[in-house]
Amino acid sequence: MANKIEQKKIILTGDRPTGCLHLGHYIGSLANRVKLQHECQQNILIADMQALTDHAEDPRLVRESVLQLGFDYLSVGIDPEISTILIQSMVPEIAELTMYYLNLVTVGRLEKNPTVKDEMKQKGFGKSVPAGFLMYPISQAADITAFKANLVPVGADQVPVLEQVNEIVKTFNRVYKTDALVECEALISQTPRLPGIDGKNKMGKSLGNCIFLSDSPDEVKRKVFEAYTDPGHIKVDDPGQIEGNMVFIYLDAFASDRKKVQELKEHYRRGGLGDVAVKNYLVEVLENSLAPIRVKRKELEKDPAEVMKILKRGTERARLVAAQTLEDVKEAMGIIY
Amino acid sequence: MANKIEQKKIILTGDRPTGCLHLGHYIGSLANRVKLQHECQQNILIADMQALTDHAEDPRLVRESVLQLGFDYLSVGIDPEISTILIQSMVPEIAELTMYYLNLVTVGRLEKNPTVKDEMKQKGFGKSVPAGFLMYPISQAADITAFKANLVPVGADQVPVLEQVNEIVKTFNRVYKTDALVECEALISQTPRLPGIDGKNKMGKSLGNCIFLSDSPDEVKRKVFEAYTDPGHIKVDDPGQIEGNMVFIYLDAFASDRKKVQELKEHYRRGGLGDVAVKNYLVEVLENSLAPIRVKRKELEKDPAEVMKILKRGTERARLVAAQTLEDVKEAMGIIY
Repeated sequence: MANKIEQKKIILTGDRPTGCLHLGHYIGSLANRVKLQHECQQNILIADMQALTDHAEDPRLVRESVLQLGFDYLSVGIDPEISTILIQSMVPEIAELTMYYLNLVTVGRLEKNPTVKDEMKQKGFGKSVPAGFLMYPISQAADITAFKANLVPVGADQVPVLEQVNEIVKTFNRVYKTDALVECEALISQTPRLPGIDGKNKMGKSLGNCIFLSDSPDEVKRKVFEAYTDPGHIKVDDPGQIEGNMVFIYLDAFASDRKKVQELKEHYRRGGLGDVAVKNYLVEVLENSLAPIRVKRKELEKDPAEVMKILKRGTERARLVAAQTLEDVKEAMGIIY
Repeated sequence: MANKIEQKKIILTGDRPTGCLHLGHYIGSLANRVKLQHECQQNILIADMQALTDHAEDPRLVRESVLQLGFDYLSVGIDPEISTILIQSMVPEIAELTMYYLNLVTVGRLEKNPTVKDEMKQKGFGKSVPAGFLMYPISQAADITAFKANLVPVGADQVPVLEQVNEIVKTFNRVYKTDALVECEALISQTPRLPGIDGKNKMGKSLGNCIFLSDSPDEVKRKVFEAYTDPGHIKVDDPGQIEGNMVFIYLDAFASDRKKVQELKEHYRRGGLGDVAVKNYLVEVLENSLAPIRVKRKELEKDPAEVMKILKRGTERARLVAAQTLEDVKEAMGIIY
């Protein structure tokens, strides 16, 4: 009997460089990437071209954030020797693949993508949506298929984008009678979105409610002390509410001593535990994660050129793979001359 | 006083490889290109990526037509040493430029382009228009700006596309505070569109009403004898109509002996000149143009690999220019790492 050797899954993940990464990214994806890099062949895309689809007028933010992402990735423990970190705009094969896929998707289909529709509504785009933004799922199809990725970690809200990616894969393979492209599977994050310190929204760069991985200990402390708790919990002796209380939500996400968190919750509920005490504990818990990241980051920041070199080495490695896919694609289409 | 040396104009022109070229192309653009190549720096684009925007399911036609265009160009007298002939899909910089320009144009603006609207109506696309087709003016902006072309020969119906191209140039230069991109001017063809032998439509590959540059003498003769003349001109002695008579329209376009054509017209009008006689003369006139083209083509067809080499050499030369433009563009955006 033939023994089927299980192939390592190929992951495509990444971020749009529009700022530094925060605790929401850490708990939602970065921590997971540090684990997954040992089990899968992981590609991490710094999606600068995609960031420009709605930041065309602010390329400086995008450029500066590329290096910041590099710092973030390396300081949380992503190992550039086993994960491939790449800069999207430096892999022209992605742009080329996008051009070919654009012909396989109708404008009507793009406009029906629920994820894109929601995002367009949020951004108030309407018909004034940049063409590049409307078609970003096609460009994501190029990102994913360029590396023949079959596993894509996403939030539940991004699933329709992956469905569209797989539609493109199926259409391409059918039209050109090939199996050059590979369908991908969504690896849906089980972690609920981390809310921001304001308690009103998910943690988001544009909302000013983030604790960044790059924040100093003082900033972390200040933000924790600003975080929304229970406005009815005025005196220490008052009974307090856990639900919607950012401090306990963050403790649930980051504290490893579950028993202690449980005790604190009960104490807070029945009264007698002040916000200051719990917040101090949260600072301690967060610093357990953040302090080593910060130390690593400080070290990396001393030599940004070296970090850029690491990103470029990853990009070169990635290009070899993407170039092979592009060749497969062109060969399937029969447009190699 | 400073003497301004006049720079040679830079032309971008070309064709979508979806078949062989015909008399309409010859009179409308090819003959002009043969002249212009001595006055301007001329780039001739074999737009295979653009051809795929509405021929995604028929890449074989596109591939085969690339070489046919090569035969057509060289056999009419385009000199690959002074004109740069290039294959679009082999210049990835064009795809990259397209990606950046996509962010500077709204979907609403694309949908309002009169040329694209007309073509979409003709093709019955509606919302099922491929995304690549809707945005082909953006990809043309990349074609034109890649070579910093400032002169683009077009039919009057294509002027709105060039207006959109110039909008992109202006937006880019304004947003990124640069003069990296160059606006272009339309060189509008003065030749009216040549009708097909059916007399109903312009000569068009998909309409089966063409005389191709690659047609044999027998085919040319057969097609001329099929051409629509005056259905009321039944007997030789009947007076005949010149207006809408394909034979006279072609004579007007191709005959150099204007006096003789004038005499024939008068004779035909008053009666006594049969269709066969005029058609025989038209065959003779067309063969004056077509015979030397056919001889050259036969010679080229003996060594298609050599023709492909010529196209590739042109493409390489073109890439150097496009790569420089892409670098200028990225530098203006500040996304060179």
